[in-house]
Amino acid sequence: MTAGAGMAADIAEQPEVFARLLAGPARERIAAVAERIARRRPRHVVFTARGTSDHAALYGAYLTEIRLGIPAGLASPSVVTVFGARPDLSESLVVGVSQSGGSPDLCAVLEAARETGALTLAVTNTPGSPLAAAADLAVDVAAGHERAVAATKTYTAELLALLLLVESVDGGPAADIDDLPGLAERALADDTPLHLAARYRFAARLVTTGRGYAYPTAREAALKLMETSYLPSLAFSGADLLHGPLAMADPDVPVLAVVDAGPGGQSMRDVLARLGERRADVVVVGPEDVPGTAARIPVPRVDERYAPLLDILPLQRLALAVALARGQDPDAPRGLNKVTATL
Amino acid sequence: MTAGAGMAADIAEQPEVFARLLAGPARERIAAVAERIARRRPRHVVFTARGTSDHAALYGAYLTEIRLGIPAGLASPSVVTVFGARPDLSESLVVGVSQSGGSPDLCAVLEAARETGALTLAVTNTPGSPLAAAADLAVDVAAGHERAVAATKTYTAELLALLLLVESVDGGPAADIDDLPGLAERALADDTPLHLAARYRFAARLVTTGRGYAYPTAREAALKLMETSYLPSLAFSGADLLHGPLAMADPDVPVLAVVDAGPGGQSMRDVLARLGERRADVVVVGPEDVPGTAARIPVPRVDERYAPLLDILPLQRLALAVALARGQDPDAPRGLNKVTATL
Repeated sequence: MTAGAGMAADIAEQPEVFARLLAGPARERIAAVAERIARRRPRHVVFTARGTSDHAALYGAYLTEIRLGIPAGLASPSVVTVFGARPDLSESLVVGVSQSGGSPDLCAVLEAARETGALTLAVTNTPGSPLAAAADLAVDVAAGHERAVAATKTYTAELLALLLLVESVDGGPAADIDDLPGLAERALADDTPLHLAARYRFAARLVTTGRGYAYPTAREAALKLMETSYLPSLAFSGADLLHGPLAMADPDVPVLAVVDAGPGGQSMRDVLARLGERRADVVVVGPEDVPGTAARIPVPRVDERYAPLLDILPLQRLALAVALARGQDPDAPRGLNKVTATL
Repeated sequence: MTAGAGMAADIAEQPEVFARLLAGPARERIAAVAERIARRRPRHVVFTARGTSDHAALYGAYLTEIRLGIPAGLASPSVVTVFGARPDLSESLVVGVSQSGGSPDLCAVLEAARETGALTLAVTNTPGSPLAAAADLAVDVAAGHERAVAATKTYTAELLALLLLVESVDGGPAADIDDLPGLAERALADDTPLHLAARYRFAARLVTTGRGYAYPTAREAALKLMETSYLPSLAFSGADLLHGPLAMADPDVPVLAVVDAGPGGQSMRDVLARLGERRADVVVVGPEDVPGTAARIPVPRVDERYAPLLDILPLQRLALAVALARGQDPDAPRGLNKVTATL
């Protein structure tokens, strides 16, 4: 098989994966889980995940706080698995996110949480997985078999499942959520990422940045570039970038900035100005041109909470194209397996 | 003044800063704050911070979960400041950590939390700062004036103040906490970091890693190298490193691994073996030699929860030495100010 063919096929399937999750049966199953959560009224939501799924979990935490007004955060599994602590989660919902559902540390976190009285939920692409078995409730993101080791369609399926879940707790999703499959198709139809890949052929490192809903996208884009192209990529929230790492920025460090239409994107303007002062090479991912930047990867304009489902699509294509330009096979990155077992 | 003289003086002062915080009056003030917290019995602790202080906050979150069994996490200020959300924190303790106490976003998070009924605490090096004024309770870390822009003594003072606070909520610190000033002096007396600096003179990037209590140290070491030497440094928890970024490791990417004596350090053995398979160049920071690694920066052997206060000391010296070797002045990094105002 051609190098990267698996990853290319996974990426291309995403509009279809969105449509499947938004269709009747999958949506009803998520609504039923949301009802159980709404009845329980958790005072606090804890997400636990690793790698790509950790970025989906981060999106889930932003959604939970902003849409539901319930404090949310990400748990460090080592607290439970390495140090043997048993934080009291009796009024919490604990959500494990994992494409394989096979990571022993996440299972241990959910089991420990359940013992202290938490309501637990597994969000996985593998119904009947150990994580789903360990949890009170389970959501199947139904992305189908992923060909490449680097996760793409399972990531966006996790995002959409979490979006549907949170919006269902809060009275049900808005009608425009059904536009997402078509918008994803549009985002994937633009070939700007392929033209830009040559710029990063010889880059020694790269910085990604975004704020709020766009921060998980910045983190996931950095991970995708690292695991497929071995390009060291540093992800920072826009605000954190100003607290230290900005010193590193100069015309030789390329920056990918995720700038959506909305308050999160607006709050990046100051960050972009500071990067401009340092003469950084900034490429923007977003629906609007930003003066003073080198180029833009266009994505459709949507409500900011939907943007993470679209912004990552051209960035997955960019990672694939950079990997191929560097002579790598992103379907089978060196040193990695599809299921990573950590304790 | 000689380049780096300010940072060198700040670093050298840390044993004295520890001794001052551990002496009667500062300790009693922290114990009084701890008593107020213990009486309130928060169900959940939220930390909020930026930059270096964010790493101190991460340490505080590990301590809170492991020592007190209270769920803890880090808040994204943008949820409040950019998206206008008001998560219900009525049963929570919300802790802002900031050396200057002047960051408007942290003040906004504490004010919003207070409005929903949270107990709020400011941990700063600036009594009377806006953050201290916005909070119900305040702890002064009493590190004195910091000369360099890159934070060193204010970081470890924040760590020690959080340690004293958490242990005071749980019946008071163990007697061996008073050994820390002497141990810090010993950690600073060893010149291995200066000898190792030459290895990183021409490095294009660097990876730092650690698990549990050692993870904040890995993050802070990476930030210190970035802001003083402009050396792109990627920090990963040991477990996350195996989920993707491991593909990036090869003999040309130097790795600094923080490996303490205790369960966190033990859980790094598997990570080090995987790095060995990829023939990565690993330098260990810790009290014990690790077979198959290139070198070790020695630190005194202590209980793992104390290790973050010592492990960072030689890493601060390494960052200073690498910056000087590269012809930079770490006292005044390009593009940075001492107080960073983000909204």
